[in-house]
Amino acid sequence: MEHLQETQVDTAVAYEGHFLKVQKDTIRLPDGKTTKREYIKHPGAVVVLPVFDDGSILLERQFRYPLRQVFIEYPAGKIDPGEESLACAKRELLEETGYTATEWQFVCTIHNAIAYSDEHLDIFLARGLTAGDAKLDEGEFLETFKATLPEMLQWIREGKVSDVKTVIGTFWLDKILKGEWTL
Amino acid sequence: MEHLQETQVDTAVAYEGHFLKVQKDTIRLPDGKTTKREYIKHPGAVVVLPVFDDGSILLERQFRYPLRQVFIEYPAGKIDPGEESLACAKRELLEETGYTATEWQFVCTIHNAIAYSDEHLDIFLARGLTAGDAKLDEGEFLETFKATLPEMLQWIREGKVSDVKTVIGTFWLDKILKGEWTL
Repeated sequence: MEHLQETQVDTAVAYEGHFLKVQKDTIRLPDGKTTKREYIKHPGAVVVLPVFDDGSILLERQFRYPLRQVFIEYPAGKIDPGEESLACAKRELLEETGYTATEWQFVCTIHNAIAYSDEHLDIFLARGLTAGDAKLDEGEFLETFKATLPEMLQWIREGKVSDVKTVIGTFWLDKILKGEWTL
Repeated sequence: MEHLQETQVDTAVAYEGHFLKVQKDTIRLPDGKTTKREYIKHPGAVVVLPVFDDGSILLERQFRYPLRQVFIEYPAGKIDPGEESLACAKRELLEETGYTATEWQFVCTIHNAIAYSDEHLDIFLARGLTAGDAKLDEGEFLETFKATLPEMLQWIREGKVSDVKTVIGTFWLDKILKGEWTL
């Protein structure tokens, strides 16, 4: 794949806000010319697919300001510096929903904005759920609810579920719970 | 959903680069407190799922600098100012691959970074494909290839395909080509 490769000439922080960090690099293109690439530096995130013993799924509703809209989502959150992604998954599930889980399995890693962000999301399946008290971060507002897999698939089909981590997690659950794919 | 809603107090452009634009708004939280929200302003994008008469799929390999990695992707691109998303889909398919299509169907809209971007992607299915010459943008390097749906599903399972628009497009194609979902 060397004929497609772009290499770094120099790198600089172009913007550092309280939440977003933009990197702006000079790069060399495959044809030898140079150009600029601007992108978000992101620590990575985790997504949890919490499945109850009866096959129903734990979900969240959260207002997402960039789109001024409430989204249906799986529990998820950013990885802290030095944190393992499984530890982050357990922490986020507990903080956002109050649930703990006895069985954890890695599902897959996805890349959600490859043109302008280095973010990756590690998705985990969580089973053996026990309810407890949520501990939301300051300024974090969300509510949890349960749905079935057929409901989630229908909502994807209708466009009611459009968040990529939630769409992909649901398609994987469809394959896993049908026994077509094993982890 | 009013108990989850955040409302704008003020808005400002925090960073405007040659490619990325960061907006930084003051907002009011559901509990009445104020805080800041920083996010990328994006014009939106389209994704094309080009399917040949034999069921095979047209794909691209492209180096994505933020992750320093070649990704397997469907043809895709940003919507120009004032452009309809279907017109954008036809333009991007032609520019990136040289193909034109006689049958176009809207599949779904997805949101890929709801925490920090207002980007949406409109996905279209393209059939009745005819080959021609690609017209890549200056500084754009990619190659096209064909794969089957079972290959794509296997690559998702193995983690070889991890770009969210490509994962979601493939899961939809799986449902559509099996006849489980119709458009």
